[in-house]
Amino acid sequence: MATKTNHEANALNALKQAFLVYPQTIKKEPRVAYAGTRGSYGEEASLAFFKQHCELFPFKTFEDVFVALSQGSIDYGVLPIENSSTGSIAAVYDLLSRYQYYIVGEEEIKARHCLLAPKGASFETIAEVYSHPQGFSQSQEFLNDYTRWKCIPYYNTAIAAAYVAEKSDPTMAAIASKRAAEIYDLEVLAENINFSQTNVTRFVVISRKIELFKNPTRVSIAFRLPHRPGSLYEIIGIFSVFSLNLCKIESRPLLKENWEYLFFIDFTGNISQNTLVNLLPIIEEKAEYFQFLGYYPQFEEK
Amino acid sequence: MATKTNHEANALNALKQAFLVYPQTIKKEPRVAYAGTRGSYGEEASLAFFKQHCELFPFKTFEDVFVALSQGSIDYGVLPIENSSTGSIAAVYDLLSRYQYYIVGEEEIKARHCLLAPKGASFETIAEVYSHPQGFSQSQEFLNDYTRWKCIPYYNTAIAAAYVAEKSDPTMAAIASKRAAEIYDLEVLAENINFSQTNVTRFVVISRKIELFKNPTRVSIAFRLPHRPGSLYEIIGIFSVFSLNLCKIESRPLLKENWEYLFFIDFTGNISQNTLVNLLPIIEEKAEYFQFLGYYPQFEEK
Repeated sequence: MATKTNHEANALNALKQAFLVYPQTIKKEPRVAYAGTRGSYGEEASLAFFKQHCELFPFKTFEDVFVALSQGSIDYGVLPIENSSTGSIAAVYDLLSRYQYYIVGEEEIKARHCLLAPKGASFETIAEVYSHPQGFSQSQEFLNDYTRWKCIPYYNTAIAAAYVAEKSDPTMAAIASKRAAEIYDLEVLAENINFSQTNVTRFVVISRKIELFKNPTRVSIAFRLPHRPGSLYEIIGIFSVFSLNLCKIESRPLLKENWEYLFFIDFTGNISQNTLVNLLPIIEEKAEYFQFLGYYPQFEEK
Repeated sequence: MATKTNHEANALNALKQAFLVYPQTIKKEPRVAYAGTRGSYGEEASLAFFKQHCELFPFKTFEDVFVALSQGSIDYGVLPIENSSTGSIAAVYDLLSRYQYYIVGEEEIKARHCLLAPKGASFETIAEVYSHPQGFSQSQEFLNDYTRWKCIPYYNTAIAAAYVAEKSDPTMAAIASKRAAEIYDLEVLAENINFSQTNVTRFVVISRKIELFKNPTRVSIAFRLPHRPGSLYEIIGIFSVFSLNLCKIESRPLLKENWEYLFFIDFTGNISQNTLVNLLPIIEEKAEYFQFLGYYPQFEEK
C-alpha cells in the first residue's frame, strides 16, 4: 500500500531480531530521564522501575526526554501515558509516533497526597494551600473541613512543595507526595488525604530500540484505518480469532485529516513469538498506517 | 441482568418521549454555565453555541457546573470533552455518568494563541511569559526565536492574561486568546503564534434532560462489558450491521474493578428514530452497564 513506510517493515524485522537475543537485561546503572522535578511522580516511577540502581535526569518537557534519547545522552525515558482520572496522555503517543521509539516496560504509581508545610506551621496557621488542580480535586473531602484555606493552583505538586519550602511561611502549605516532603524538608501535617478518589498513573519506559525483557505479556500498537463502516470491526475480529484480550482501545482524532482517527490498542493474553509475528502483519495489511509500539512485561502490584 | 438500573430503562423511555416533541428549540436567553474565567475558551464555546443570546455564569470547576444544573440555577452547562492534543477529558465523562445528565449539543473551538502584554511593552522589554504549559508547547516554534524569555507555567491561559494585566509590568507577557486581550485590556504583540500545531477542543452542551434539537446526527453512549475475549467485537459488530460510523471509541479503566474498562463510543450515520430505539436495547442487553449519553447535531465548521 502506498502509505506503508519502511519503518513498518523495519519494526517487524527488528522485533524478530530482538527475539533472537531474548531475554535482554537492563544494562548496569542506566541513565534514566523523566519529565518533572525532583519529588515528582515521574521520579518515583523511574526509581520503582529501575530499583534505584540508575542515574536520574529530570527534564522539563516530554519532548526533552525524547531529544535526550535521540542524542544518546540517556538510555531510557520514563513518561506518563495513562491516568485513571484524566485518561490517556496523548502527547506521549504523538512523540512515540514521531520519534519511532519503543515501549520496553511499564510502571504504575498511586498518587498518595499529603498536606506539607514548613516547620512551625500547623492547621491553625495555614491560610493558603498550593497544589496541582488535580491534587485539590482528589483531596476535596479532606479540604471540605478547612473551607477558610485558599487553594492556589500550581504547575505540579512537586513544584508547589518546592515553592512552599522556599517561602518558609507558616501560612502556606502544599498538597504533594511524602517524597516531596523529604526532598524539600517540609513537615507532613496529614497523610493520604486523597481518600475521596484513587488516582493511578501508568508510566511507560521508552527506548530507542526494541528490547524484550523477561516475560513480556502486553503489546501496544497504533494504526489508522480506511474511513468506512466495519473497518474497525474487522481488526477487532483478528484479536478475537487469536483469543487475545484487548485491555485498552482508544481513537484519537487526526486533525489534518478532518478528524480521521488513529487507533491505539493494547492487548494481553497467551502471546507466543509465533502469534505475534503472524498477527502483526495481518493488522498491518488491513491498516493504512501501522506502528508497533512495544512488547513488554505488564506491571504487577508488588 | 442484576446490574441493570432503573436509570437505563428510564433513559430509553425518556428518549422515546423526547422524539414525541421533536424538534425542541433552545429556550430564550438561557442561563449557561462554563468552567473557567472570562476570556477562556469555555466562554468562547458558550457564546459560539448560544450565539450571544444567553446569560453566562463562569464556575471554577467542572463539578460546580453540574451542581448548578442540579440546583436549577442554570439551564445548560458547556464543558470540554475532547482535545486534539491531550485526548478525552475523562473527568467530564465521570460527571456525566455520576449525575446522569445528557449531551444535547457540541461545539469546537480552535485555540488561536496570541502574545499579549501591557501597554508600553515590546518584544525588547519582555523577560517573562505566562501561560498554560500547552500554550507554550503549541507556540514552541515562535518561542524558539526568543530564548531569553523565561516561560512561567500558569493555571490557564485566561488567568495568565489576567495576572499580567494586573501587574502591568512591561517585562511580563502572556500567551492567551485575542478575546483575553480585549477583556483584560492588553496589547496584542503577535497573533496566531501557535503555527506549529493546530489545537481544537470539542465542548459538549449538557442538560438535565434529553432535548432533541433539529437534525441530530451523533450519538454518545457508555457501557461496561463482561471481561472475556470477543465481547467488544460483538458490540462493534452491531454498529457494522446497522451501517453506522464509529467516530470515537475509548476505553477507560475502572480502578475499583482492577482496571476493568468502561467504553465510550460516539457514532454517526443515517440514524432514524427507529434505528436508535431498536439499536440501543441490543447494546444494553450485551453490556453489564449501559448509559445513553445523548443524541445531538454534529458540529459543523461555520
